[in-house]
Amino acid sequence: MFAKEVYVNRRKKLKEAVGSGVILFLGNDEVGSNFEDNVYPFRQDSTFAYFFGISMPGLSAVIDIDGNTEKLYGPALSIDHVIFSGSHQSLEDKAASVGVRHVADSANLQGDLKEALQRKNKIHYLPPYRSEHRLKLARLLEIPLEEIEGKVSIDLIKAIVALRSIKSADELAEIEGAIATTVEMQKKAMEMARPGITERDLYAEVERIALTHGAGTSFPTIMTVNGQILHNHYRGNELKSGDMVLCDCGAEAHSGYAGDLTRTFPVDKKFTTRQKQVYDIVYAAYKTAKEMLRPGIEFYKVHWAACVKIVEGLKELGLMKGDPDEAVSAGAHTLFFQCGLGHMLGMDVHDMENLGEAYVGYTDELRQSTEFGFKSLRLGRILQEGMVLTVEPGIYLIPELIDLRKGQKAYLDFVDYESLEAYRHFGGIRIEDVFYITSDGAQLLGPGLPTTSGEIEAFRQSAGS
Amino acid sequence: MFAKEVYVNRRKKLKEAVGSGVILFLGNDEVGSNFEDNVYPFRQDSTFAYFFGISMPGLSAVIDIDGNTEKLYGPALSIDHVIFSGSHQSLEDKAASVGVRHVADSANLQGDLKEALQRKNKIHYLPPYRSEHRLKLARLLEIPLEEIEGKVSIDLIKAIVALRSIKSADELAEIEGAIATTVEMQKKAMEMARPGITERDLYAEVERIALTHGAGTSFPTIMTVNGQILHNHYRGNELKSGDMVLCDCGAEAHSGYAGDLTRTFPVDKKFTTRQKQVYDIVYAAYKTAKEMLRPGIEFYKVHWAACVKIVEGLKELGLMKGDPDEAVSAGAHTLFFQCGLGHMLGMDVHDMENLGEAYVGYTDELRQSTEFGFKSLRLGRILQEGMVLTVEPGIYLIPELIDLRKGQKAYLDFVDYESLEAYRHFGGIRIEDVFYITSDGAQLLGPGLPTTSGEIEAFRQSAGS
Repeated sequence: MFAKEVYVNRRKKLKEAVGSGVILFLGNDEVGSNFEDNVYPFRQDSTFAYFFGISMPGLSAVIDIDGNTEKLYGPALSIDHVIFSGSHQSLEDKAASVGVRHVADSANLQGDLKEALQRKNKIHYLPPYRSEHRLKLARLLEIPLEEIEGKVSIDLIKAIVALRSIKSADELAEIEGAIATTVEMQKKAMEMARPGITERDLYAEVERIALTHGAGTSFPTIMTVNGQILHNHYRGNELKSGDMVLCDCGAEAHSGYAGDLTRTFPVDKKFTTRQKQVYDIVYAAYKTAKEMLRPGIEFYKVHWAACVKIVEGLKELGLMKGDPDEAVSAGAHTLFFQCGLGHMLGMDVHDMENLGEAYVGYTDELRQSTEFGFKSLRLGRILQEGMVLTVEPGIYLIPELIDLRKGQKAYLDFVDYESLEAYRHFGGIRIEDVFYITSDGAQLLGPGLPTTSGEIEAFRQSAGS
Repeated sequence: MFAKEVYVNRRKKLKEAVGSGVILFLGNDEVGSNFEDNVYPFRQDSTFAYFFGISMPGLSAVIDIDGNTEKLYGPALSIDHVIFSGSHQSLEDKAASVGVRHVADSANLQGDLKEALQRKNKIHYLPPYRSEHRLKLARLLEIPLEEIEGKVSIDLIKAIVALRSIKSADELAEIEGAIATTVEMQKKAMEMARPGITERDLYAEVERIALTHGAGTSFPTIMTVNGQILHNHYRGNELKSGDMVLCDCGAEAHSGYAGDLTRTFPVDKKFTTRQKQVYDIVYAAYKTAKEMLRPGIEFYKVHWAACVKIVEGLKELGLMKGDPDEAVSAGAHTLFFQCGLGHMLGMDVHDMENLGEAYVGYTDELRQSTEFGFKSLRLGRILQEGMVLTVEPGIYLIPELIDLRKGQKAYLDFVDYESLEAYRHFGGIRIEDVFYITSDGAQLLGPGLPTTSGEIEAFRQSAGS
């Protein structure tokens, strides 16, 4: 948690931006995994944490902009709770620590909102991402369940996105901390890899490091010899000589801020010639993108340039042909790079994703594409000083996608399907780092990791026996 | 997953027990932590897994007892899903692997249930423990949200409890596996403990072991120098000489079966004299309980006997006085032992807790107490061969509770509050093992751990430097 003034100031700015009405914030609740009391690790809602700092289940808050009051709602402290949980700090004290003067039992929330509605106040709320919140909103605001998503406050979303998109020095320090832990996780995985060990062994060790230094991982770790499977949470494979391991992981600081880095490395001490060739293409795209980062540039254009770089490299390798820019226009690169170049990062690893990519990554002027590949680009808009974002190009050889596109006779001017056969089971490579947009460029966050194929091989050779 | 016949046979028995109507099973869905796609580790509902074996999100199943049909509902496999998730096995193949012949897209579930309702079939369903299921039940069965809990099927609950309470040899092997991993976790914590290390360091290592061998932990690990705080998930303390560590943890096998063991050990190589005295009282209660386990005995009586043993020990220590049996009748032992002696264990660490303790741990004849202490006893009923349960007595010195009872002038005939002052900050001790009820007694499950104070000290002395 930051100093009281940080939260007071954030709420002040929010009130100014939204202008009028009542803002309802729902903190997160516990969720049972296989029964109600067997709960997943508690995670506070990031927007709630951003404005109110307190990480405990069952809280809500209301800001009445016109009346200029702020009130925190929570469960009363029962003696049973004190006896069994040893928890003593009252809700009043917790509220005071973030500069909120009014508190009330959660039971009063519905009545207070009813009163606000009677005063014809607009009640601003955010899109729910858990069913528990859908139920609460329906009950508290007397809205039919199916109308909840339609009545969210776009003004509130836009105001929050504007605030949370620009990171303060305090926030940057938290992100740097999460990335430092993530670097330790990545290095350990790179050190441990050897034939005979399993993905799960590496995964479990990476989780251990994340739990030692913080709140665990900021998203489900990808630790796989099948880097081409983009949403991959299977971890049962044994590493074999000739394999590459793709490790995409991030630590979460106790404050909630996320790390997110990816490296792809050989199980042997060196990449094969073919692996190194493809790796170097991904690195070229990474380098191109990195060097373009600065305030004022559309991230969409950075993505485009990375795609062109990938096509250029694949042309040299004989897998693609034709004009690279035309190939990207035709979407031919999406046979190899199916996803977006990056996303904002903050208290959420995909920062503010629950508020809607249309508002977070795009604007009324620049809208998200609906085409395969481009639709997966979460961030397209103009970069500003203070933003934190990832750059994560990759090349993924997905046999099912190759067969699909070949069957559709797609991209025939740009893809050499015959040469591609030899790469059918190549796998996937990604490089991912996190950058802070400065006044005239960008700064790599964290203490740094081996990044080029040469650096990775040197690290592997120095690691262990 | 077990062989196909296991699931076929379980469903056959269930149909016989329930007799008629339609049974609706809702498998679990993904839950987002801080946004929808940033999901917690998926955990299938245990009852769904018990009858249908398949661990993937978004499934439902319907058994029409009268029509003798079984149907699995799930999401259709999209090409995007295959491309991004590399998942190929069709719903048909998955269903076939557990002996279910009919499958359908989830979109058909509502219509099929509507038809069943029109045929005036009773639709049996279980109490929901996630809001997502509340919403689904309301939508699928056209029941107002507030009536869902009232309309659950008691017949279905009782039939499932009868089946799941008795573990097969296959299930026992899974539980033994989870306990073997848990033993490894416990030993590692006991080995690593030393002044200067933190609770979190031990916790993270225990999680690593659980993730290496299975699906992680079966409940949130308690790793604390404050064993008297019963619901304790804070892990930030540094271990100091003179402290004891209470480690309550369990591995979850990939099949979902749980381990659950507790040991309390000194940070130094030996307990202090006072710690050893209290430890030996807890052990005496553990031994008494363990030796009473057999088919036909009410677990309530085993709990009672353990409570009496605790009072006897505390009398010798000068903290209690009077007749031990009368002390327990008066509830005076609950100043030291506030919870229950044990619970059933299976695919849930508190097995079937979501079905209701009234049906799982008690019967129409023997109902759960509402008194402090006794109300926390999850299991009271007569033990049967094939049950698996924990025995976990403890002594917990909770300053807030001592002050409360002293202020109430409670238990004055049985508690020496003056002598108790010296133990105010003693902490807490628990010993927990898992037992299988055999035809004439009980069998300790797992490879075993140091249990007596002497065994614990010997282990600590042989561990590390």
